[in-house]
Amino acid sequence: MANKKISIKDIAKALGVSITTISFIINGKAEEKRISKEMVKKVEDYVAKVGYRPNHLAQSLRSGKSKVLVLMVEDISNSFFANIARLLEEKAFKNGYKIIYCSTENNTEKAKELIHTFKSRNVDGFIITPTAGLKNEIENLIKEDFAVILFDRWIPDLDCSHVIVENRRSSFEATQHLIENGAKKIVFITVTSDQTQMQDRLAGYLEAVKMAKMSPYVFEEPFHTSTEEFQGDQIKEYLLDHPDADALFFATNYLAFEGLHAIRKLELKIPKDVQVLAFDDHFFFSLYQPSISAIAQPLELIADKLMEGILIQLDDCGKSNSVEFKVELVNQFIQRKSTEFKV
Amino acid sequence: MANKKISIKDIAKALGVSITTISFIINGKAEEKRISKEMVKKVEDYVAKVGYRPNHLAQSLRSGKSKVLVLMVEDISNSFFANIARLLEEKAFKNGYKIIYCSTENNTEKAKELIHTFKSRNVDGFIITPTAGLKNEIENLIKEDFAVILFDRWIPDLDCSHVIVENRRSSFEATQHLIENGAKKIVFITVTSDQTQMQDRLAGYLEAVKMAKMSPYVFEEPFHTSTEEFQGDQIKEYLLDHPDADALFFATNYLAFEGLHAIRKLELKIPKDVQVLAFDDHFFFSLYQPSISAIAQPLELIADKLMEGILIQLDDCGKSNSVEFKVELVNQFIQRKSTEFKV
Repeated sequence: MANKKISIKDIAKALGVSITTISFIINGKAEEKRISKEMVKKVEDYVAKVGYRPNHLAQSLRSGKSKVLVLMVEDISNSFFANIARLLEEKAFKNGYKIIYCSTENNTEKAKELIHTFKSRNVDGFIITPTAGLKNEIENLIKEDFAVILFDRWIPDLDCSHVIVENRRSSFEATQHLIENGAKKIVFITVTSDQTQMQDRLAGYLEAVKMAKMSPYVFEEPFHTSTEEFQGDQIKEYLLDHPDADALFFATNYLAFEGLHAIRKLELKIPKDVQVLAFDDHFFFSLYQPSISAIAQPLELIADKLMEGILIQLDDCGKSNSVEFKVELVNQFIQRKSTEFKV
Repeated sequence: MANKKISIKDIAKALGVSITTISFIINGKAEEKRISKEMVKKVEDYVAKVGYRPNHLAQSLRSGKSKVLVLMVEDISNSFFANIARLLEEKAFKNGYKIIYCSTENNTEKAKELIHTFKSRNVDGFIITPTAGLKNEIENLIKEDFAVILFDRWIPDLDCSHVIVENRRSSFEATQHLIENGAKKIVFITVTSDQTQMQDRLAGYLEAVKMAKMSPYVFEEPFHTSTEEFQGDQIKEYLLDHPDADALFFATNYLAFEGLHAIRKLELKIPKDVQVLAFDDHFFFSLYQPSISAIAQPLELIADKLMEGILIQLDDCGKSNSVEFKVELVNQFIQRKSTEFKV
C-alpha cells in the first residue's frame, strides 16, 4: 500500500533528475532520447527499490481518467501555436495522452463555452493560452481538480501554473541593440491587447528608450490574429506620418509580415532607411532578403515544460498542486541583416 | 416514428440545396453565412412540415456518440494542414463536434497505432491524410461503421469517401504556363513518395513536357516533411549539375522554400535566370521579392466539403455510406513575378 504514494515527482526529487527524463526512461524512450546508460540504471534501480509503477497504467485502470488533454490556443493556424501543438502532441503521445485542440480566437465567450463543454466530457487537463476574462473559469477548473497550465501569457492575479518566456527582458535588450546600431526614432508596432506577453514586450521597449532618453513611439493596431490578410496599409499610413522613423520593432511575427508589405510599398531600404526586428522568429525571416532579426522563443523547451508541468499534476492526481509550477524561459536573439550596424 | 427516418441529407436532396447550407440554417448561422432569407424560409418551412429535428440533439441523447472527430494529418505544424485544422475546427464546432488531432509523420506504424487507440475510445469519425499501407485499417474502420473521409491524397484501390484537388490538371496547366513563358528546361522538384497527390502532380508535369516534345527533368529528394530545416543544399547541387535549367516547378511549398535558399546561394535571378513556381500557395510567396507564382488549393472549400462528407455519414449514423462522397476540387493558379513572360 505504501508504494501507491510514490509518484514520478518523488522519484525526480529523490534522484535530483527532471520529471521528463524519468518519464522517458519509464516509457522506454531512453535510447531515443539519448539518456545515458548510467542514468537509466540509476532510475531503474530506484524504481525497482521503491516499487514504483507508472501512474498512467494505474490511471487507465481507474475509471474517470480519459488520458485526454485539451489544448486551447488563440489560433491553431498561427505558426507559433501550430509548432507548439506539434511538439506537445508528440510529447503527450509518448506519455500516453491524446490532445484535443481548439482555437479561442481571443474570444472570452467562446473560450468559456469551450471550457464548459470539455469539463463535462471527462478530460484530464487543460493547457491554455488564456484570454482576458477567463480568471473565474480557470479558478474553477483548479478547484475541481483538473490539471491546468497556462502558456504564452498568464493571469497576474490568479495563482496558476504557467510556462512563459522573458518577454520584457528580451524586448528591452532588442531595443538596446537597435539603439547601439544608431537608431534615433524606434517605433514599437503592436496590437491593442491587455495580454501579459504583449504588455511585457511593450514595457521592455519603453524602459530601453527611456533609459536612452529617447521618445517612445508606439503604433497600436486593433487586435487581430495572424489569419487576417497581411497588407500593412495601416502601418504604411503611420510611416508616412513619421518619415523619420529609422527602426521598427514588431511585437509579433505576423505584424512584421504586415510591416514588410508596408516597407515594400514605400520602397524603403532595410536596414539603410529603416532597421527591422520582430518578436517571435519564423523560418521566413531567414529567407527574406535582407534577412530579418528576431527574438526566438524556445519552442521545444516550452513544450517540454508544459508537459512536465501537467504531468506533475496528473501524477499526483487529485492533489491540486496546479499553482506550484511557474516557469519563465530565456529567449534567443538572432541577429540578421535587417539590424546591421549602419553608422 | 416516421420522422426519425428523415435526415439532413434527405432535406438537402428534397430541396436541391447543399447539406452545409441546411446545416447552417438549422444551427442558426444563416445570417452569419449570408444565406438569403428566401432560402432560410424554404428550409425552415420544409423542416417544420416534415417534423425534422437536428440529429445531433438526438445523438447526444443516445449513448455511444462522443461528438468527437479525429483529424489525422501528416504534420500539424505544416501550414497547409494547420490552416485546414483551423477551418475544420471552426466548422466542427458549429456542428457540435470537437476535434482531436494527431500527426502521423507519414509513418504507417504510428498511424496504425493511433487508429487502434482512437477506435477503442469512442470517437465518431476519422478525417485522415492516409499514409501508404493504411488500406486495411481504413477498410476496417468503414466495416465497423465509423464515419471516415480521406483528404489531400486517397487510396486508389479502396472505396472510401475523399476530398482531393485536381493535382494532375493544375500541374499540367502550370507547366504549360512555364513553356509559354519561354522555358526550355523545366525541372520538377519533388520528394520520393507514392502518395497519390505527389504522383498526380508529377504526372501532370510529365504530360505537359511530353506534349511540348521537351525532355523531363525530375529531381527527387528523399521524403521529408516541412519540419526539417530548409537549407536547400541538395537542390543547389542539382542546379550546379544542370546550369541550363531555366524553370523550377516545386511539388510543395516547403520544397520551394528550400529551392529559394539554393537559388540565393547560387545568386540566380528570378525570373531572368530561372522561373519559379510552387504547388500550394503560402502567404510568404506574395511577400517574397520577387513574388512567387503558385497553385492555390481552395482551403475553405476543402474544409467545407470534409465537414459535409462526414456529416452525411454521421447523420445517417450506422448506415455505412462512407464510400459515396468523392469530391475533386479545382485549384487556382496565381501568377506572380517569378513566372513573368521573359522572351
